[in-house]
Amino acid sequence: MKALVYRGVGDIRLEEVPRPALQGPEEAIVKVTTSSICGSDLHIVHGHLGVEPGTIVGHEFTGVVEEVGPAVAGVKPGDRVLGAAGVWCGQCPACRSNLSIACKHLGIYGCGPMFGSLQGAQAEYIRVPFANVTLEKIPDGLTEEQVLFVGDILSTAYMGAEGITPGGPGIQPGSTVAVFGAGPVGLCAVAAARLFGPARIISVDMVDYRLEMAARLGADRVINAAREDPAAAITEITGGWGADFVIEAIGSTEAFTVCLSVVAPGGTVSAIGVFQQPVELPIHLLLAKNIGVKMGLANLIHMKRLIGLIQAGKLDLTPIITHRLPLAEVVRGYEIFEKKLDGCVKVLLKP
Amino acid sequence: MKALVYRGVGDIRLEEVPRPALQGPEEAIVKVTTSSICGSDLHIVHGHLGVEPGTIVGHEFTGVVEEVGPAVAGVKPGDRVLGAAGVWCGQCPACRSNLSIACKHLGIYGCGPMFGSLQGAQAEYIRVPFANVTLEKIPDGLTEEQVLFVGDILSTAYMGAEGITPGGPGIQPGSTVAVFGAGPVGLCAVAAARLFGPARIISVDMVDYRLEMAARLGADRVINAAREDPAAAITEITGGWGADFVIEAIGSTEAFTVCLSVVAPGGTVSAIGVFQQPVELPIHLLLAKNIGVKMGLANLIHMKRLIGLIQAGKLDLTPIITHRLPLAEVVRGYEIFEKKLDGCVKVLLKP
Amino acid sequence: MKALVYRGVGDIRLEEVPRPALQGPEEAIVKVTTSSICGSDLHIVHGHLGVEPGTIVGHEFTGVVEEVGPAVAGVKPGDRVLGAAGVWCGQCPACRSNLSIACKHLGIYGCGPMFGSLQGAQAEYIRVPFANVTLEKIPDGLTEEQVLFVGDILSTAYMGAEGITPGGPGIQPGSTVAVFGAGPVGLCAVAAARLFGPARIISVDMVDYRLEMAARLGADRVINAAREDPAAAITEITGGWGADFVIEAIGSTEAFTVCLSVVAPGGTVSAIGVFQQPVELPIHLLLAKNIGVKMGLANLIHMKRLIGLIQAGKLDLTPIITHRLPLAEVVRGYEIFEKKLDGCVKVLLKP
Amino acid sequence: MKALVYRGVGDIRLEEVPRPALQGPEEAIVKVTTSSICGSDLHIVHGHLGVEPGTIVGHEFTGVVEEVGPAVAGVKPGDRVLGAAGVWCGQCPACRSNLSIACKHLGIYGCGPMFGSLQGAQAEYIRVPFANVTLEKIPDGLTEEQVLFVGDILSTAYMGAEGITPGGPGIQPGSTVAVFGAGPVGLCAVAAARLFGPARIISVDMVDYRLEMAARLGADRVINAAREDPAAAITEITGGWGADFVIEAIGSTEAFTVCLSVVAPGGTVSAIGVFQQPVELPIHLLLAKNIGVKMGLANLIHMKRLIGLIQAGKLDLTPIITHRLPLAEVVRGYEIFEKKLDGCVKVLLKP
Repeated sequence: MKALVYRGVGDIRLEEVPRPALQGPEEAIVKVTTSSICGSDLHIVHGHLGVEPGTIVGHEFTGVVEEVGPAVAGVKPGDRVLGAAGVWCGQCPACRSNLSIACKHLGIYGCGPMFGSLQGAQAEYIRVPFANVTLEKIPDGLTEEQVLFVGDILSTAYMGAEGITPGGPGIQPGSTVAVFGAGPVGLCAVAAARLFGPARIISVDMVDYRLEMAARLGADRVINAAREDPAAAITEITGGWGADFVIEAIGSTEAFTVCLSVVAPGGTVSAIGVFQQPVELPIHLLLAKNIGVKMGLANLIHMKRLIGLIQAGKLDLTPIITHRLPLAEVVRGYEIFEKKLDGCVKVLLKP
Repeated sequence: MKALVYRGVGDIRLEEVPRPALQGPEEAIVKVTTSSICGSDLHIVHGHLGVEPGTIVGHEFTGVVEEVGPAVAGVKPGDRVLGAAGVWCGQCPACRSNLSIACKHLGIYGCGPMFGSLQGAQAEYIRVPFANVTLEKIPDGLTEEQVLFVGDILSTAYMGAEGITPGGPGIQPGSTVAVFGAGPVGLCAVAAARLFGPARIISVDMVDYRLEMAARLGADRVINAAREDPAAAITEITGGWGADFVIEAIGSTEAFTVCLSVVAPGGTVSAIGVFQQPVELPIHLLLAKNIGVKMGLANLIHMKRLIGLIQAGKLDLTPIITHRLPLAEVVRGYEIFEKKLDGCVKVLLKP
Repeated sequence: MKALVYRGVGDIRLEEVPRPALQGPEEAIVKVTTSSICGSDLHIVHGHLGVEPGTIVGHEFTGVVEEVGPAVAGVKPGDRVLGAAGVWCGQCPACRSNLSIACKHLGIYGCGPMFGSLQGAQAEYIRVPFANVTLEKIPDGLTEEQVLFVGDILSTAYMGAEGITPGGPGIQPGSTVAVFGAGPVGLCAVAAARLFGPARIISVDMVDYRLEMAARLGADRVINAAREDPAAAITEITGGWGADFVIEAIGSTEAFTVCLSVVAPGGTVSAIGVFQQPVELPIHLLLAKNIGVKMGLANLIHMKRLIGLIQAGKLDLTPIITHRLPLAEVVRGYEIFEKKLDGCVKVLLKP
Repeated sequence: MKALVYRGVGDIRLEEVPRPALQGPEEAIVKVTTSSICGSDLHIVHGHLGVEPGTIVGHEFTGVVEEVGPAVAGVKPGDRVLGAAGVWCGQCPACRSNLSIACKHLGIYGCGPMFGSLQGAQAEYIRVPFANVTLEKIPDGLTEEQVLFVGDILSTAYMGAEGITPGGPGIQPGSTVAVFGAGPVGLCAVAAARLFGPARIISVDMVDYRLEMAARLGADRVINAAREDPAAAITEITGGWGADFVIEAIGSTEAFTVCLSVVAPGGTVSAIGVFQQPVELPIHLLLAKNIGVKMGLANLIHMKRLIGLIQAGKLDLTPIITHRLPLAEVVRGYEIFEKKLDGCVKVLLKP
């Protein structure tokens, strides 16, 4: 089959590789019908995650079940399914405490040995461990594109709006939310934040077409940080109080510092961007603000809830899909995505 | 009257100063019967808080109401009262949202211009603004020493165990709690943590007599970090999972780093120590742990609840009182406190 | 001044009565510019609340401050204000625990001796105790009609959606909400429920024009119980699971029974209708559903939050205002309201 | 093997029956080493649950794994295990939302066709469906008797103290808790309530030896309702405020009425007794108290947490074990249990 293979820093190629086969009774083989390129995939290409050459990249996908092991009861061949970005067992104490992030069997597709050495989804077929818990059937009447982001960036964004740690606290009705970053994750965060009844959502980025998209997805106010000081603007908008809930969806140490400066007393900074280095926390200045700083990777326990909201017409992330390419053009897709060509936000691949 | 006056870095003196007088209708004058020395007072003496020479130090006190303004309804002359460490109005939006920390009228006694320039409590009398909300009557049958710490360090510790931001999450029944620091605040944190039903409380310090006191107040396991690696010990005790809830009660950048290394997935680091400088947050390594880092100053809205628990016999911090001195010997008291002489934890002053 | 006075069962009259005067330092006199008729007022007219003849009725109002006592700091003469339906001190332990319902000084305007014997708001002037906490300034740019319901039925509805008891649980994102009753309180409940991100809101009533209004305010599905069995419909809509959160906004024992039959496992029935008699709770059948039944009167601590949401354009209840009459026609207003004439939902009175 | 078989109303017999065999890959056969008699077993004997003649009774047990199906990974032959009172699949949406009570595969051992027609545990062997999730290994160092009640009444009691519905609210530190009933469930509720830091626990019953046991397990005050009016006593103890959290652990309509009369404003009545008939809810009088009434059956998701607390020495229910009999004397055991002979609280059976 065809697949996008990492060959070394800066070197990815569409190659012919063997089709995957079942390796255990709880697994499924899924024929990928749509996958997409994620910001983390760029980190992989740049060599930041230590992925081994030969790894198929990609962890966002929908498809059709091709084959299942004898212990798979939740899906059967022919079912349209949404895949989670990674896998977890669903039965260990961590999983049962809704902390699948700490599951001993945790893996993320196409992210190398730090994440279970699983082959990725930018391919014609993918092997799915723990298929009973990591695949969700796509309800009739929903398209693959409507649900695709539930498996990764929308779940990440929802978790960010909920406050990351079990019990939150998350966004409260009437609060002011600031979302730093209007890339794919930040745009999902704007849409997710709306579910919690904030009085206003402020989106901050440096790219106008992305801010326009944020406005379309529910941001009440957009700030282009290239032209306007976001800290000053948020202070003014909130009458000096600050933003009750701040989401960092970039992974930038500079933005993180601004987040801390604008968060209101008693508020939360929820970091869902992928950082590459430590940040400084001026705790001596923050003590008198009684705040929380949260950080986390996608918690995928809410996939069904999010699919329900999409089905009910309350969540629609399809506007962020700007490009659809055949898998054959995946390398060009990476270039479009990384350079933000042609107003690119999200690139879909159709094998 | 006699009072302990800050005269410059390292220079505190017992002086004769004028008795305070009422300055508004919502104020009270309290005759101090017990005050105590707090770790923050040492920061003041060392010049860290920018307190002006001439300031009376001290913010922990009980006393008897001497005089009240016409708008004071909650207490009357002759009442035995517990004072809060600071003052807030109780009526503004911040106060009504249980965030008195953000009250425009916030002040802390004896902490200089950053905190409202209020004169302190290590004196014979003290002027108390907003007396309706900042003084609590001491119930019959309770001694001053039983309730004294409710006004400051016990409220700080309770807030830390509750998770600092409104909504928590705090300590859950069955969880493992680690408290770094067995000074006065850390010991209060051990006692407060017990209220939340943890399976075990681990107290970490480098002074044996303080760890013994932690054990007496409810710590199930003590670790002298001078002799035993706390990270390794906590990892072993928890079978590799880590501590679900970690309280930093020192204000140490080194301890903070250890706190981050031992916190369990989905857990919380609650910082209630007084830090003097920023800390480093290795957010790139912590993302996959889905944790929260909280930080805050005493929230005093729970004073009545804590007094109730003391009255019911469920909280007793009197064991941490190691020294009682007449106010006349206050300067010697500071020395005992700072140098941890004679097994000192907490020094009380009786004017 | 003119006022609507209760004279006995079924007997209300517009009369000339003396203007109220300040009775204490924390009070204000407000010139009423808009008041409205509430369902509870009908209970009064029918003699259900034991109100004494001579009582001025009405507890929903906005106005302009005419005069304030010396201890009133929050508002001053000339300020446009929104009144709460009742009064509480804001300083006692109950108030400070956000349970003003249990304040010893609790009163509701125009509701007789069970509620503090306060004169009501369907008049030219009203005396407002505890004006510092029970009046809210109307922000510039908002009309009186936009905020009027915050003082009573919208706060009730919001509290219902939040789950009534402190800590909830309230409506969660993705849940199915059923609101029984599309009168003024039920319509506010539909609007309030939307703030919590439900997948769908189902409104149940027997009057079509009210159901149409429910749809306009955010109901995704309306059920006219005169023509369709709501229990069967909700079962079908939810695939047999039931409604996660059910709001009873009628005060009907029959509707309450239906609410219990449609609530999902782990769900909540939140009763905010005004009941006149006990209900039966088939607890032997409900044990296996692990549900909560909550009941409560308006908690007014969220007035500022709701005003903020209105100001931000996220809440708009003005569509339920169907009639505006001069105070001189108040008796006719009661008839229109009670008989639901001319598509009546809410009648406003302009003195 | 020997087993206690229900033969008709009032007719139970120790009989020789066939040993159970595995019926599916996720099942286990457990050799029962300890079982116990539960209050629900009496309801069965009295014919209240519609159990079919021929049913083996009993749902509280520990044992040793004898045999497992090929899909059982969590336990293996020879393991000492604690059984849950019932079974659930652990994988359906209800189970994944921590509402196993709504699992389509829910069953309770020995409780007849309403609960899955599973054979019970008062026998030498028992067949255990879904063994991966419904059996917990007993940690080394713990006896069977220490953990036995975790599988049923202690989990019920803990859920009651937590507030039953997901999100609570449960008992808060400093609150006053009243537990009605000092039978096995009520005594577990006293022990569970202690984990949440209440200021006081009041135990109400009519049998002195059970109240003495309540005091030993943590009740601060006991009330024998045969001699003292509990409503008057609770009113006096709480200075008129009432009990913040009330647990009904009897299943009595009379006691339920008293619970409603003593619950404080904003409080919760948590019903975990097994009721046989509806109760009356005077909602017209309760509206102004803003309370919640919760009701539920055992939620068994917290078994591991409770075992952890027992292991840590924070929970010990062994004092309620008053009788240990060989299985051969089970019929006599029922008589002792029902008639409360010889100070009976809990009867254990050792096959």
